[in-house]
Amino acid sequence: MSMNETIQTISTRRSYREFTDKPVSTENLNLILQAGTFAPSAMNRQSAEIIVIKNETKREVLRALGMKLFDGRDPFYGAKEIILVAALKDSKCPIQDGSCVLQNMFLAAESLGIGSCWINCVEDIFQSPEGLELKHSLGISDELIIVGTCILGYPKKYPEYPKKRKAQYIRFVK
Amino acid sequence: MSMNETIQTISTRRSYREFTDKPVSTENLNLILQAGTFAPSAMNRQSAEIIVIKNETKREVLRALGMKLFDGRDPFYGAKEIILVAALKDSKCPIQDGSCVLQNMFLAAESLGIGSCWINCVEDIFQSPEGLELKHSLGISDELIIVGTCILGYPKKYPEYPKKRKAQYIRFVK
Repeated sequence: MSMNETIQTISTRRSYREFTDKPVSTENLNLILQAGTFAPSAMNRQSAEIIVIKNETKREVLRALGMKLFDGRDPFYGAKEIILVAALKDSKCPIQDGSCVLQNMFLAAESLGIGSCWINCVEDIFQSPEGLELKHSLGISDELIIVGTCILGYPKKYPEYPKKRKAQYIRFVK
Repeated sequence: MSMNETIQTISTRRSYREFTDKPVSTENLNLILQAGTFAPSAMNRQSAEIIVIKNETKREVLRALGMKLFDGRDPFYGAKEIILVAALKDSKCPIQDGSCVLQNMFLAAESLGIGSCWINCVEDIFQSPEGLELKHSLGISDELIIVGTCILGYPKKYPEYPKKRKAQYIRFVK
């Protein structure tokens, strides 16, 4: 397979769940966030919003609520960078818009040697009374749903290729 | 902004709606499709399926049905490559899974100098009796929804940067 750097990044990206203590620099974080904003959106409505939780207290409250939901397991895998992608519920395609933002960020991170993972539980966390309180304290209005969460950090190791791609992923109608 | 090739591709990707007659080679098409299969999916369930409409008759039936829906305008912008991304309705996150597949394909295309665009009307086309017949003739079962469609071709021109990114795309909670 002849590859350029972009396709190389796409095919080597993994979901990382173990991170070192090395922090992600502000410069790299900004590159990743900017990459998110370049995602396409339905009718260019840009329904998504990227919420970067830099407040340590709020971040740890979120983590604690997540651990409560997952029997003591940290659903954010100890990551220090937790970035929520929300989108306007009433937009044409909020889930699609937000997902493309997330995928852009994952790829930008990978290209910088930074590990990322899609975490899916924040909308669930925000369902409880404490979760809803946290949501509001993060300035997230009820018009927004959380499409997904991007955690970031420097990988402890390169994860195994997860599972064989299913045979029927691509089908040609001839 | 210091950029690597991947971030460059992410930030220069556009949605293309005017194509030349030059066909996309099988080699490039396969690179783009493979890139799609490297997308993450919820719990690695790989709920998405990539359906490449290489049958000219079926492709033109799809286009004609689209034109009927859009007052004579071709919603696929004359593109010869029409690739549907479907996903299992009952999977955990079908829309998210399919959207990441699409975004990978758009970026791989861009990196190869091939223009792409997300087209959103196929699920609507498949609602009519003729549309449903076509859906089945494409081998798409009722368990699948169409998340989105990727059209491909060589761009006639590089589109203008569409509209200023909204100011509130990124928000830091400090």
